[in-house]
Amino acid sequence: MPKVRADISMSLDGFVAGPNASLEDPLGVGGMQLHEWALRLEAWRSAHGLPGGEVDVDSDLITESTGSTGAVVMGRHMFSGGSGPWEDDPNRDGWWGDEPPFHAPVFVLTHHPRERREMQGGTSFTFVTDGVESAVRQAKAEAGEQDVLVAGGGAVVQQALAAGLLDEIQVHVAPVLLGSGVRLFEDATPAGLEITRVIAGPQATHIRYRIKR
Amino acid sequence: MPKVRADISMSLDGFVAGPNASLEDPLGVGGMQLHEWALRLEAWRSAHGLPGGEVDVDSDLITESTGSTGAVVMGRHMFSGGSGPWEDDPNRDGWWGDEPPFHAPVFVLTHHPRERREMQGGTSFTFVTDGVESAVRQAKAEAGEQDVLVAGGGAVVQQALAAGLLDEIQVHVAPVLLGSGVRLFEDATPAGLEITRVIAGPQATHIRYRIKR
Repeated sequence: MPKVRADISMSLDGFVAGPNASLEDPLGVGGMQLHEWALRLEAWRSAHGLPGGEVDVDSDLITESTGSTGAVVMGRHMFSGGSGPWEDDPNRDGWWGDEPPFHAPVFVLTHHPRERREMQGGTSFTFVTDGVESAVRQAKAEAGEQDVLVAGGGAVVQQALAAGLLDEIQVHVAPVLLGSGVRLFEDATPAGLEITRVIAGPQATHIRYRIKR
Repeated sequence: MPKVRADISMSLDGFVAGPNASLEDPLGVGGMQLHEWALRLEAWRSAHGLPGGEVDVDSDLITESTGSTGAVVMGRHMFSGGSGPWEDDPNRDGWWGDEPPFHAPVFVLTHHPRERREMQGGTSFTFVTDGVESAVRQAKAEAGEQDVLVAGGGAVVQQALAAGLLDEIQVHVAPVLLGSGVRLFEDATPAGLEITRVIAGPQATHIRYRIKR
Protein backbone atom coordinates (compact mmCIF):
# COMPACT_ATOMS: atom_id res chain seq x y z
CA MET A 1 0.00 0.00 0.00
CA PRO A 2 1.72 3.22 -1.08
CA LYS A 3 2.09 5.90 1.56
CA VAL A 4 2.32 9.64 1.72
CA ARG A 5 5.53 10.29 3.62
CA ALA A 6 7.20 13.43 4.84
CA ASP A 7 10.93 13.25 5.32
CA ILE A 8 12.74 16.29 6.66
CA SER A 9 15.75 17.39 8.69
CA MET A 10 15.11 19.42 11.83
CA SER A 11 17.35 21.00 14.47
CA LEU A 12 16.90 19.86 18.06
CA ASP A 13 15.15 23.18 18.68
CA GLY A 14 12.63 22.48 15.93
CA PHE A 15 13.81 24.44 12.91
CA VAL A 16 13.98 23.25 9.31
CA ALA A 17 15.68 26.45 8.17
CA GLY A 18 17.64 29.12 9.98
CA PRO A 19 16.78 32.81 10.19
CA ASN A 20 16.38 34.94 7.04
CA ALA A 21 15.39 32.02 4.80
CA SER A 22 14.47 33.24 1.32
CA LEU A 23 14.34 32.18 -2.31
CA GLU A 24 18.02 33.15 -2.50
CA ASP A 25 18.90 31.23 0.65
CA PRO A 26 16.19 28.64 1.39
CA LEU A 27 18.05 27.11 4.34
CA GLY A 28 18.68 30.44 6.08
CA VAL A 29 21.60 31.22 8.37
CA GLY A 30 23.16 28.01 9.68
CA GLY A 31 20.54 25.83 8.02
CA MET A 32 23.07 23.82 6.03
CA GLN A 33 24.09 22.18 9.32
CA LEU A 34 20.77 20.33 9.30
CA HIS A 35 21.82 18.44 6.20
CA GLU A 36 25.41 17.62 7.03
CA TRP A 37 24.43 14.05 7.89
CA ALA A 38 23.33 13.56 4.26
CA LEU A 39 25.76 15.76 2.34
CA ARG A 40 28.77 13.64 3.28
CA LEU A 41 27.20 10.39 2.04
CA GLU A 42 28.00 8.57 -1.17
CA ALA A 43 24.27 7.87 -1.66
CA TRP A 44 23.46 11.58 -1.60
CA ARG A 45 26.46 12.61 -3.67
CA SER A 46 25.87 10.07 -6.43
CA ALA A 47 22.19 11.11 -6.70
CA HIS A 48 23.49 14.62 -7.29
CA GLY A 49 26.12 13.52 -9.80
CA LEU A 50 29.04 13.94 -7.40
CA PRO A 51 31.87 11.43 -6.82
CA GLY A 52 33.03 9.96 -3.51
CA GLY A 53 31.39 10.15 -0.13
CA GLU A 54 30.89 7.93 2.87
CA VAL A 55 28.80 4.79 3.35
CA ASP A 56 27.34 4.09 6.78
CA VAL A 57 24.10 3.53 8.67
CA ASP A 58 22.69 6.78 7.29
CA SER A 59 23.24 5.73 3.67
CA ASP A 60 20.46 3.17 3.73
CA LEU A 61 17.98 5.91 4.55
CA ILE A 62 18.73 7.69 1.33
CA THR A 63 18.68 4.62 -0.90
CA GLU A 64 15.52 3.43 0.84
CA SER A 65 13.78 6.73 0.23
CA THR A 66 14.95 6.98 -3.37
CA GLY A 67 13.85 3.41 -4.07
CA SER A 68 10.35 3.78 -2.68
CA THR A 69 9.47 7.26 -3.94
CA GLY A 70 7.23 7.46 -6.99
CA ALA A 71 6.50 11.19 -6.87
CA VAL A 72 7.59 14.22 -4.88
CA VAL A 73 5.75 17.26 -3.53
CA MET A 74 7.76 20.38 -2.61
CA GLY A 75 7.38 24.08 -1.99
CA ARG A 76 8.66 26.95 -4.06
CA HIS A 77 11.63 27.68 -1.79
CA MET A 78 12.89 24.14 -2.13
CA PHE A 79 12.32 24.20 -5.86
CA SER A 80 14.24 27.46 -6.19
CA GLY A 81 17.15 25.85 -4.39
CA GLY A 82 18.72 29.23 -3.78
CA SER A 83 18.47 30.48 -7.35
CA GLY A 84 16.28 33.41 -6.35
CA PRO A 85 12.87 34.44 -7.72
CA TRP A 86 12.02 32.09 -10.58
CA GLU A 87 8.28 32.25 -10.98
CA ASP A 88 8.04 35.26 -13.27
CA ASP A 89 10.76 34.05 -15.61
CA PRO A 90 9.50 31.25 -17.91
CA ASN A 91 13.06 30.23 -18.78
CA ARG A 92 14.15 29.50 -15.22
CA ASP A 93 14.05 25.92 -13.95
CA GLY A 94 15.51 26.33 -10.50
CA TRP A 95 19.06 25.33 -9.73
CA TRP A 96 18.58 21.60 -10.10
CA GLY A 97 20.25 21.43 -13.52
CA ASP A 98 19.34 19.40 -16.59
CA GLU A 99 19.20 16.14 -14.66
CA PRO A 100 17.69 16.87 -11.24
CA PRO A 101 18.31 14.33 -8.46
CA PHE A 102 14.66 13.36 -7.99
CA HIS A 103 14.23 10.91 -10.91
CA ALA A 104 10.46 11.10 -10.42
CA PRO A 105 7.61 13.51 -11.12
CA VAL A 106 7.86 16.55 -8.84
CA PHE A 107 4.85 18.69 -7.93
CA VAL A 108 5.81 22.23 -6.95
CA LEU A 109 3.40 24.34 -4.91
CA THR A 110 3.26 27.91 -6.22
CA HIS A 111 0.79 30.68 -6.94
CA HIS A 112 2.18 31.13 -10.45
CA PRO A 113 0.80 28.91 -13.23
CA ARG A 114 3.54 27.45 -15.43
CA GLU A 115 3.89 24.71 -18.05
CA ARG A 116 5.00 21.29 -16.94
CA ARG A 117 8.68 20.69 -17.69
CA GLU A 118 10.21 17.30 -18.51
CA MET A 119 13.82 17.05 -17.41
CA GLN A 120 16.45 14.38 -18.01
CA GLY A 121 16.65 11.24 -15.88
CA GLY A 122 12.94 10.84 -15.21
CA THR A 123 12.32 14.07 -13.35
CA SER A 124 9.44 16.31 -14.37
CA PHE A 125 8.23 19.49 -12.73
CA THR A 126 4.50 20.15 -12.51
CA PHE A 127 3.42 23.47 -11.01
CA VAL A 128 0.37 23.25 -8.78
CA THR A 129 -1.54 26.41 -7.96
CA ASP A 130 -4.55 25.00 -6.12
CA GLY A 131 -3.01 23.82 -2.89
CA VAL A 132 -1.37 20.89 -1.16
CA GLU A 133 -4.34 18.52 -1.41
CA SER A 134 -4.33 18.88 -5.16
CA ALA A 135 -0.55 18.42 -5.28
CA VAL A 136 -0.71 15.21 -3.24
CA ARG A 137 -3.63 13.91 -5.31
CA GLN A 138 -1.77 14.51 -8.56
CA ALA A 139 1.41 13.02 -7.11
CA LYS A 140 -0.45 9.88 -6.00
CA ALA A 141 -1.87 9.44 -9.48
CA GLU A 142 1.63 9.41 -10.98
CA ALA A 143 3.36 7.48 -8.17
CA GLY A 144 1.51 4.28 -8.96
CA GLU A 145 2.49 1.60 -6.45
CA GLN A 146 5.19 3.78 -4.92
CA ASP A 147 5.08 6.39 -2.18
CA VAL A 148 4.54 10.11 -2.44
CA LEU A 149 7.35 11.97 -0.70
CA VAL A 150 6.48 15.36 0.80
CA ALA A 151 10.01 16.70 0.76
CA GLY A 152 9.60 20.17 2.29
CA GLY A 153 10.00 22.85 3.22
CA GLY A 154 8.44 23.15 6.61
CA ALA A 155 5.35 25.02 5.42
CA VAL A 156 4.44 22.29 2.94
CA VAL A 157 4.92 19.54 5.52
CA GLN A 158 2.77 21.54 7.95
CA GLN A 159 0.04 22.02 5.38
CA ALA A 160 0.04 18.32 4.48
CA LEU A 161 -0.08 17.37 8.14
CA ALA A 162 -2.90 19.81 8.92
CA ALA A 163 -4.90 18.51 5.95
CA GLY A 164 -4.57 14.94 7.23
CA LEU A 165 -2.68 13.86 4.11
CA LEU A 166 0.35 12.25 5.76
CA ASP A 167 0.59 8.58 6.72
CA GLU A 168 4.12 8.86 8.03
CA ILE A 169 6.74 11.42 8.96
CA GLN A 170 10.44 10.79 9.30
CA VAL A 171 12.37 13.47 11.12
CA HIS A 172 16.15 13.64 10.97
CA VAL A 173 16.98 15.38 14.25
CA ALA A 174 20.27 17.20 13.73
CA PRO A 175 22.51 17.89 16.74
CA VAL A 176 22.38 21.64 16.50
CA LEU A 177 20.46 24.57 17.98
CA LEU A 178 19.62 27.27 15.44
CA GLY A 179 17.84 29.64 17.83
CA SER A 180 15.38 30.96 15.27
CA GLY A 181 14.17 30.38 11.74
CA VAL A 182 11.40 28.33 10.16
CA ARG A 183 9.82 25.82 12.53
CA LEU A 184 8.74 22.41 11.30
CA PHE A 185 5.79 22.46 13.68
CA GLU A 186 4.04 25.74 14.36
CA ASP A 187 0.61 25.41 15.95
CA ALA A 188 0.37 21.78 14.87
CA THR A 189 -2.95 20.09 15.48
CA PRO A 190 -2.39 18.01 18.63
CA ALA A 191 -1.87 14.41 17.59
CA GLY A 192 -0.51 11.12 18.77
CA LEU A 193 2.27 9.46 16.83
CA GLU A 194 3.65 5.95 16.88
CA ILE A 195 7.39 5.44 16.71
CA THR A 196 8.00 2.87 13.98
CA ARG A 197 11.78 3.05 13.65
CA VAL A 198 14.80 4.82 15.08
CA ILE A 199 18.20 4.88 13.38
CA ALA A 200 21.02 6.40 15.39
CA GLY A 201 23.39 8.01 12.94
CA PRO A 202 26.52 9.87 13.98
CA GLN A 203 25.24 13.23 12.75
CA ALA A 204 21.47 12.85 13.07
CA THR A 205 18.89 10.74 14.86
CA HIS A 206 16.36 9.45 12.33
CA ILE A 207 12.95 8.86 13.90
CA ARG A 208 10.08 7.56 11.82
CA TYR A 209 6.50 7.95 13.04
CA ARG A 210 3.15 6.65 11.91
CA ILE A 211 0.53 9.36 12.26
CA LYS A 212 -2.44 8.12 14.24
CA ARG A 213 -5.79 9.18 12.86
CA MET B 1 34.44 14.24 36.54
CA PRO B 2 30.96 15.21 37.69
CA LYS B 3 28.74 16.88 35.11
CA VAL B 4 25.88 19.31 35.03
CA ARG B 5 23.17 17.47 33.12
CA ALA B 6 19.73 18.46 31.95
CA ASP B 7 17.28 15.64 31.44
CA ILE B 8 13.82 16.45 30.15
CA SER B 9 10.92 15.08 28.12
CA MET B 10 9.86 17.02 25.01
CA SER B 11 7.17 16.54 22.39
CA LEU B 12 8.26 16.16 18.77
CA ASP B 13 7.08 19.73 18.24
CA GLY B 14 9.33 21.00 21.00
CA PHE B 15 7.13 21.45 24.05
CA VAL B 16 7.92 20.43 27.62
CA ALA B 17 4.44 21.38 28.81
CA GLY B 18 1.13 21.87 27.04
CA PRO B 19 -0.94 25.04 26.92
CA ASN B 20 -2.18 26.72 30.11
CA ALA B 21 0.64 25.38 32.29
CA SER B 22 0.42 26.80 35.82
CA LEU B 23 1.31 26.09 39.44
CA GLU B 24 -1.93 24.09 39.61
CA ASP B 25 -1.17 22.19 36.40
CA PRO B 26 2.56 22.39 35.65
CA LEU B 27 2.36 20.06 32.63
CA GLY B 28 -0.52 21.92 30.97
CA VAL B 29 -3.11 20.41 28.67
CA GLY B 30 -1.88 17.10 27.28
CA GLY B 31 1.53 17.44 28.91
CA MET B 32 1.26 14.19 30.85
CA GLN B 33 1.69 12.37 27.52
CA LEU B 34 5.33 13.50 27.53
CA HIS B 35 5.99 11.38 30.58
CA GLU B 36 4.10 8.24 29.72
CA TRP B 37 7.33 6.49 28.79
CA ALA B 38 8.47 6.88 32.42
CA LEU B 39 5.24 6.62 34.38
CA ARG B 40 4.68 3.00 33.39
CA LEU B 41 8.12 1.87 34.56
CA GLU B 42 8.93 -0.04 37.72
CA ALA B 43 12.00 2.17 38.20
CA TRP B 44 9.88 5.31 38.24
CA ARG B 45 7.09 3.80 40.32
CA SER B 46 9.37 2.43 43.02
CA ALA B 47 11.15 5.80 43.33
CA HIS B 48 7.72 7.28 44.00
CA GLY B 49 6.74 4.55 46.47
CA LEU B 50 4.39 2.78 44.07
CA PRO B 51 4.24 -0.97 43.41
CA GLY B 52 4.44 -2.77 40.06
CA GLY B 53 5.41 -1.38 36.69
CA GLU B 54 7.33 -2.51 33.65
CA VAL B 55 11.04 -3.15 33.11
CA ASP B 56 12.52 -2.51 29.68
CA VAL B 57 15.14 -0.52 27.81
CA ASP B 58 13.78 2.72 29.25
CA SER B 59 14.19 1.52 32.83
CA ASP B 60 17.98 1.76 32.74
CA LEU B 61 17.71 5.46 31.99
CA ILE B 62 15.93 6.09 35.24
CA THR B 63 18.20 3.97 37.40
CA GLU B 64 21.24 5.45 35.67
CA SER B 65 20.05 8.99 36.35
CA THR B 66 19.10 8.23 39.94
CA GLY B 67 22.44 6.54 40.57
CA SER B 68 24.58 9.36 39.24
CA THR B 69 22.69 12.37 40.56
CA GLY B 70 24.13 14.07 43.64
CA ALA B 71 21.94 17.18 43.60
CA VAL B 72 18.97 18.52 41.66
CA VAL B 73 18.02 21.99 40.39
CA MET B 74 14.39 22.70 39.52
CA GLY B 75 11.94 25.54 38.97
CA ARG B 76 9.00 26.56 41.11
CA HIS B 77 6.40 24.95 38.84
CA MET B 78 8.08 21.59 39.07
CA PHE B 79 8.48 21.98 42.82
CA SER B 80 4.80 22.81 43.20
CA GLY B 81 3.95 19.64 41.35
CA GLY B 82 0.41 20.85 40.79
CA SER B 83 -0.28 21.80 44.39
CA GLY B 84 -0.89 25.42 43.48
CA PRO B 85 0.70 28.57 44.92
CA TRP B 86 3.03 27.53 47.72
CA GLU B 87 5.49 30.33 48.14
CA ASP B 88 3.50 32.53 50.52
CA ASP B 89 2.53 29.69 52.83
CA PRO B 90 5.46 28.64 55.05
CA ASN B 91 3.78 25.33 55.85
CA ARG B 92 3.51 24.10 52.27
CA ASP B 93 6.14 21.73 50.92
CA GLY B 94 4.79 21.04 47.46
CA TRP B 95 3.08 17.78 46.66
CA TRP B 96 6.11 15.57 46.95
CA GLY B 97 5.10 14.14 50.32
CA ASP B 98 7.22 13.36 53.39
CA GLU B 99 9.66 11.26 51.38
CA PRO B 100 10.16 12.92 47.99
CA PRO B 101 11.52 10.77 45.15
CA PHE B 102 14.76 12.75 44.71
CA HIS B 103 16.84 11.32 47.57
CA ALA B 104 19.29 14.18 47.11
CA PRO B 105 19.54 17.89 47.88
CA VAL B 106 17.15 19.85 45.68
CA PHE B 107 17.66 23.53 44.82
CA VAL B 108 14.44 25.29 43.92
CA LEU B 109 14.55 28.54 41.95
CA THR B 110 12.07 31.06 43.34
CA HIS B 111 11.76 34.74 44.12
CA HIS B 112 10.51 33.97 47.63
CA PRO B 113 13.10 33.37 50.37
CA ARG B 114 12.28 30.34 52.51
CA GLU B 115 14.04 28.16 55.06
CA ARG B 116 15.76 25.00 53.90
CA ARG B 117 13.66 21.92 54.63
CA GLU B 118 15.06 18.48 55.33
CA MET B 119 12.74 15.71 54.20
CA GLN B 120 12.87 11.94 54.72
CA GLY B 121 14.98 9.68 52.53
CA GLY B 122 17.83 12.08 51.87
CA THR B 123 15.90 14.82 50.09
CA SER B 124 16.27 18.42 51.18
CA PHE B 125 14.79 21.54 49.61
CA THR B 126 16.89 24.70 49.43
CA PHE B 127 15.21 27.79 48.02
CA VAL B 128 17.46 29.88 45.81
CA THR B 129 16.49 33.46 45.07
CA ASP B 130 19.57 34.70 43.24
CA GLY B 131 19.32 32.82 39.96
CA VAL B 132 20.32 29.68 38.15
CA GLU B 133 24.08 30.17 38.39
CA SER B 134 23.84 30.33 42.14
CA ALA B 135 21.57 27.29 42.22
CA VAL B 136 23.98 25.24 40.12
CA ARG B 137 26.96 26.40 42.18
CA GLN B 138 25.27 25.42 45.43
CA ALA B 139 24.15 22.12 43.91
CA LYS B 140 27.69 21.31 42.76
CA ALA B 141 29.01 21.96 46.24
CA GLU B 142 26.63 19.37 47.71
CA ALA B 143 26.79 16.85 44.84
CA GLY B 144 30.42 15.97 45.59
CA GLU B 145 31.63 13.45 43.02
CA GLN B 146 28.18 13.05 41.52
CA ASP B 147 26.35 14.98 38.82
CA VAL B 148 24.03 17.93 39.16
CA LEU B 149 20.72 17.23 37.44
CA VAL B 150 18.87 20.23 36.03
CA ALA B 151 15.45 18.61 36.05
CA GLY B 152 13.22 21.32 34.61
CA GLY B 153 11.00 22.87 33.71
CA GLY B 154 11.83 24.30 30.36
CA ALA B 155 12.62 27.79 31.60
CA VAL B 156 15.24 26.52 34.03
CA VAL B 157 16.89 24.35 31.39
CA GLN B 158 16.89 27.32 29.02
CA GLN B 159 18.46 29.57 31.63
CA ALA B 160 21.14 27.01 32.46
CA LEU B 161 21.88 26.50 28.77
CA ALA B 162 22.06 30.23 28.08
CA ALA B 163 24.40 30.73 31.03
CA GLY B 164 26.73 28.04 29.68
CA LEU B 165 26.27 25.88 32.75
CA LEU B 166 25.31 22.60 31.06
CA ASP B 167 27.78 19.92 30.01
CA GLU B 168 25.13 17.58 28.68
CA ILE B 169 21.47 17.48 27.79
CA GLN B 170 19.38 14.38 27.40
CA VAL B 171 16.07 14.87 25.63
CA HIS B 172 13.34 12.26 25.76
CA VAL B 173 11.48 12.92 22.51
CA ALA B 174 7.90 11.78 23.03
CA PRO B 175 5.82 10.70 20.01
CA VAL B 176 3.21 13.40 20.33
CA LEU B 177 2.40 16.83 18.92
CA LEU B 178 1.06 19.25 21.53
CA GLY B 179 0.54 22.22 19.19
CA SER B 180 1.30 24.86 21.80
CA GLY B 181 2.60 25.26 25.33
CA VAL B 182 6.00 25.81 26.89
CA ARG B 183 8.90 25.27 24.50
CA LEU B 184 12.12 23.68 25.66
CA PHE B 185 14.10 25.88 23.31
CA GLU B 186 12.94 29.43 22.71
CA ASP B 187 15.52 31.70 21.14
CA ALA B 188 18.32 29.37 22.15
CA THR B 189 21.83 30.60 21.53
CA PRO B 190 22.92 28.83 18.34
CA ALA B 191 25.19 25.97 19.29
CA GLY B 192 26.60 22.73 18.05
CA LEU B 193 25.91 19.53 19.93
CA GLU B 194 27.48 16.10 19.78
CA ILE B 195 25.25 13.03 19.91
CA THR B 196 26.72 10.77 22.57
CA ARG B 197 23.99 8.15 22.87
CA VAL B 198 20.60 7.22 21.47
CA ILE B 199 18.23 4.78 23.15
CA ALA B 200 15.16 3.82 21.15
CA GLY B 201 12.37 3.17 23.61
CA PRO B 202 8.85 2.22 22.59
CA GLN B 203 7.34 5.44 23.90
CA ALA B 204 10.22 7.90 23.59
CA THR B 205 13.51 8.36 21.78
CA HIS B 206 16.20 9.24 24.29
CA ILE B 207 18.97 11.33 22.75
CA ARG B 208 21.92 12.46 24.81
CA TYR B 209 24.09 15.35 23.65
CA ARG B 210 27.35 16.83 24.76
CA ILE B 211 27.21 20.59 24.51
CA LYS B 212 30.14 21.93 22.53
CA ARG B 213 31.70 25.07 23.98
